[in-house]
Amino acid sequence: MDHNELVDKITNEVMSRLKNNLDLKNSTTGNVNSETPNLGITTQQMARYIDHTLLKPDATDKQFDQLCDEAKKYNFYSVCVNSSWVSYVAKKLRGSDVKVCSVIGFPLGESDSRSKAFETRNAIDNGANEIDMVISVSALKSGNLKYVEEDIRAVKRACRSTTVLKVILETSLLEENEKILACEISKKVGVDFVKTSTGFGGGGATVGDIELMRRVVGPEMGVKASGGIRDFKTAVAMIKAGATRIGAGAGVAIVTGGKSEGGY
Amino acid sequence: MDHNELVDKITNEVMSRLKNNLDLKNSTTGNVNSETPNLGITTQQMARYIDHTLLKPDATDKQFDQLCDEAKKYNFYSVCVNSSWVSYVAKKLRGSDVKVCSVIGFPLGESDSRSKAFETRNAIDNGANEIDMVISVSALKSGNLKYVEEDIRAVKRACRSTTVLKVILETSLLEENEKILACEISKKVGVDFVKTSTGFGGGGATVGDIELMRRVVGPEMGVKASGGIRDFKTAVAMIKAGATRIGAGAGVAIVTGGKSEGGY
Repeated sequence: MDHNELVDKITNEVMSRLKNNLDLKNSTTGNVNSETPNLGITTQQMARYIDHTLLKPDATDKQFDQLCDEAKKYNFYSVCVNSSWVSYVAKKLRGSDVKVCSVIGFPLGESDSRSKAFETRNAIDNGANEIDMVISVSALKSGNLKYVEEDIRAVKRACRSTTVLKVILETSLLEENEKILACEISKKVGVDFVKTSTGFGGGGATVGDIELMRRVVGPEMGVKASGGIRDFKTAVAMIKAGATRIGAGAGVAIVTGGKSEGGY
Repeated sequence: MDHNELVDKITNEVMSRLKNNLDLKNSTTGNVNSETPNLGITTQQMARYIDHTLLKPDATDKQFDQLCDEAKKYNFYSVCVNSSWVSYVAKKLRGSDVKVCSVIGFPLGESDSRSKAFETRNAIDNGANEIDMVISVSALKSGNLKYVEEDIRAVKRACRSTTVLKVILETSLLEENEKILACEISKKVGVDFVKTSTGFGGGGATVGDIELMRRVVGPEMGVKASGGIRDFKTAVAMIKAGATRIGAGAGVAIVTGGKSEGGY
């Protein structure tokens, strides 16, 4: 072949490999294949798994209105928002079955424990029924497991026995042994769920992580898959792997088979 | 040339173009040109502009030790950390001139106002001398300027008159009129600084934004440039445009002329 053909061929090859790299990097569900059966889950049943999520800092009141309207229309389990929007969505959802979920210490998990507990109490006072807190990854990475435990315990106390507590591990930042430790500590403290991801940490839920988390926490605790779940098939794969809740900004696309821009 | 040479040449060309693309995409200071004079600023003087910053959620205690050691060695103005690390670095820096700066409601700015105020008070109790809070971009985008003002005011009250307060606008998410509004509100509340960026919002300081912010807040208030500042020349350009403080994870590279990986 002549030089031009060669240039073309090599450039295509490089671009294709880079694209694969990027796809792989962005892919959070590489092991979901088209053969995954849907477990007989109907879209109505799927809706009850979904925390309908809007956490973007530049979202407007109109978008939160839409979030609540969609949650009521499709009968999603909850809407999941930042704590500054809890009282707003709680008012919108009053009289419906849709619960209010607030994230805490979000998304870095690096506000101090007392502040996480205060933010939790305040969110509950404003109408939150469920709390999704982020662990201190820095404490875990520093080997300060006592801090990790006390941090979760401070928020658990603020939840009392009345509010569901989910602990976000931010799995994309963790080694396998750290994921296991975080699950063990969460179970020891007696929280309700472990959850994979914030959606802001550069990675989302994987089937492998859900399987690992389910194995460590046992059959009784909740496991929430979140981050990068944008269609029905992927949501089913997460449930098959052990998830009992799905966090997604793409809830409508998941239950209608539509397209989603993705992201929170 | 033979095929191997050609492959090499083309691959280099593709990689170089991609790198340029990435550099452009990551560049936050496109309008800093090589003709920018250094204003006669010495590296010793530059160090006093710098908040030496480590905000990554997976940073370990060893990295915070290093951060504090570097801050003392190079005489940086402060170290800037998440609130979970304030008491740790405050202990490390005791007896030195280096101040402790804590971020609040970081990085989304979407914890509720009472929680931001609590986190602020707690950070001050733990040793913070300066507070960098993030505004509620969602309230600003929703046209709820009263919320934006009250949110800043709640944190200002927690700072009393003794603690320096900087207000992070997250300029990369804002239109020009929103940047102006945020500066005007910050000035009205009587905070000490407006600041460009969290470093987590997909964009950093630009000379244009610093000039705009300086113009709106007038000559008396502080303006902090942060996000993407990785060398002396860029830091000088920010100061020339009106910045009176530089937030950077690359402080050592800035004052030594070394290389920085960048990022917080």
